[in-house]
Amino acid sequence: MTYCVGIILDSGLIFASDSRTHAGVDNFASFCKLSLFEQTGDRVIVLLSSGNLGGTQAVISHLRQQGARPDCPSLWNAGSMFDVALLVSDAMRLVDKRDGPHLAKNESGFHASFILGGQIKGEPPRLFRLYAEGNFIEAGDQTPYFQTGETKYGKPIIDWAITRSTTLGDATKCVLVSFESTMRSNLSVGMPIDLICYPLDSLAVTMRRRFDPGDHYFTALSKEWNAGIREVFSHLTDLEW
Amino acid sequence: MTYCVGIILDSGLIFASDSRTHAGVDNFASFCKLSLFEQTGDRVIVLLSSGNLGGTQAVISHLRQQGARPDCPSLWNAGSMFDVALLVSDAMRLVDKRDGPHLAKNESGFHASFILGGQIKGEPPRLFRLYAEGNFIEAGDQTPYFQTGETKYGKPIIDWAITRSTTLGDATKCVLVSFESTMRSNLSVGMPIDLICYPLDSLAVTMRRRFDPGDHYFTALSKEWNAGIREVFSHLTDLEW
Repeated sequence: MTYCVGIILDSGLIFASDSRTHAGVDNFASFCKLSLFEQTGDRVIVLLSSGNLGGTQAVISHLRQQGARPDCPSLWNAGSMFDVALLVSDAMRLVDKRDGPHLAKNESGFHASFILGGQIKGEPPRLFRLYAEGNFIEAGDQTPYFQTGETKYGKPIIDWAITRSTTLGDATKCVLVSFESTMRSNLSVGMPIDLICYPLDSLAVTMRRRFDPGDHYFTALSKEWNAGIREVFSHLTDLEW
Repeated sequence: MTYCVGIILDSGLIFASDSRTHAGVDNFASFCKLSLFEQTGDRVIVLLSSGNLGGTQAVISHLRQQGARPDCPSLWNAGSMFDVALLVSDAMRLVDKRDGPHLAKNESGFHASFILGGQIKGEPPRLFRLYAEGNFIEAGDQTPYFQTGETKYGKPIIDWAITRSTTLGDATKCVLVSFESTMRSNLSVGMPIDLICYPLDSLAVTMRRRFDPGDHYFTALSKEWNAGIREVFSHLTDLEW
């Protein structure tokens, strides 16, 4: 399984992904699922990958190869984040066309999906979620986030705490708590956690962090959080019977 | 779907269930999923039902009919909660034997399962979870709760807040928040919520409550909770990049 979250706030974007891949409990490994395309002052584009690793890696490799050819439409010269989403979608369909029939023989299939977000100079930040078929949706005001993979355990905390006006700092802590609750309940989601916090109009990545197992901040945050919510419960109005 | 929770604490037991049954989004109804067998001063037994309503109702009806015959082993004369679990298991297998083959024709099956808890005089309170096959497990110190149905959304809050030493009052509020997060994310879990809070050794049900849609306490609790956890996030140590 996988857990990825992308959030769009008035003040910027947050991206986070776990690193566990597995094909059974006795066959797991760590791979970074966060891919960054950054040209300081011009664009910051982040992709979070879920699903079949062979598929997601192939999509990213296609996008990077396109980007290396100056004459080719690519993530480096796309005029908008919508055009970027179209390019990612095209790459997904290319990989599906090549691999899909072979995977289908094994009752498998092309199950890659992505959270895509970022900002291109002249546009506000935007956030998309691309499905395995290559179609996609864009985040709005009512639902300012997307999750992929093992989404259920970590959803309530985001619903409770995050609106478009939440600060980047508070939303970052919320995302980490969302990962804590997911990893606690699903062994197939695991550290390291990769995190990027992107402030509006910065057009550069200045806040990127990897949380390895035993990370001091993450461990301390979990403890503070547990103590904090027990305190909240003790102060909520008691039920009268 | 369904959402049921049973919790065992040093200070007693908590049971809660939603009331929604459905066979598609255009075919849903309300049925109470909490069944109480109470003989004040002698025993309090609670069953929370999940799965095929025809199956769970048949099991409860068998148990009630057995209980009406004074010469028959039943929930009213069982010597321990373990014996009660065996009786429920027997009733489940009886219903499965009768209905199972007919349901199987329709690619369906007997999917009833139960959370069972309570106290019989002379024993401490006990909590069980019975699977559709009629086998069962008992709650221990490390995992003092069972959930059935749509369990994921409401699990983290219980993991964070509840240990055996949590008070009945705080655990009650936590269970309600767990329901709030589940209903917010899964339309097939819905009010009314039935709740019983059973204080250790009381051998009587004095705290039973039904929360209908728009319940003032439930609505106010949700608001207090949201404000409370946003406050917690704002006080958690900020991440240094």
